[in-house]
Amino acid sequence: MAPFRIEVRVMPRAALLDPQGQAVEHALHALGFPEVRQARVGKHLVLEVEAPTREDAAARARAMCDRLLANPVTEDYLLAVDGGGKGA
Amino acid sequence: MAPFRIEVRVMPRAALLDPQGQAVEHALHALGFPEVRQARVGKHLVLEVEAPTREDAAARARAMCDRLLANPVTEDYLLAVDGGGKGA
Repeated sequence: MAPFRIEVRVMPRAALLDPQGQAVEHALHALGFPEVRQARVGKHLVLEVEAPTREDAAARARAMCDRLLANPVTEDYLLAVDGGGKGA
Repeated sequence: MAPFRIEVRVMPRAALLDPQGQAVEHALHALGFPEVRQARVGKHLVLEVEAPTREDAAARARAMCDRLLANPVTEDYLLAVDGGGKGA
């Protein structure tokens, strides 16, 4: 078993409304940043996990996203795995 | 003026407690992922802005983070600027 660091980005799907992003966009306009055309807001998670291989770490992280971290109807996610003696 | 896409990652500072991350960690353990040693949760924002140069876009985005997007006491942020004819 080796330690892996998994970075997960969860964003609202492009086709869907993003109320939090719209709130940020309006707030930026009100604060004097009219050049902002669009803002979208998602989550960034960093997970420290133990796994036998990098592939296992990625597969388990995908299961975590499907079960808990991302809403499959409204969100997309992207994973990056570091560690296990092959990376930073 | 050219369009730029700015990716902003806002994370709780490493030295600080991250209650949302702890909640995710406990939920993952309860769902059958005991291999998770730590979870940290932050925000990922994507901003579409107009700016004369990439440097201006980055400077304005830093000002947005300092004014609104990140809490300077509890959070760190990281910026990446794409576009303006030099990137994706």
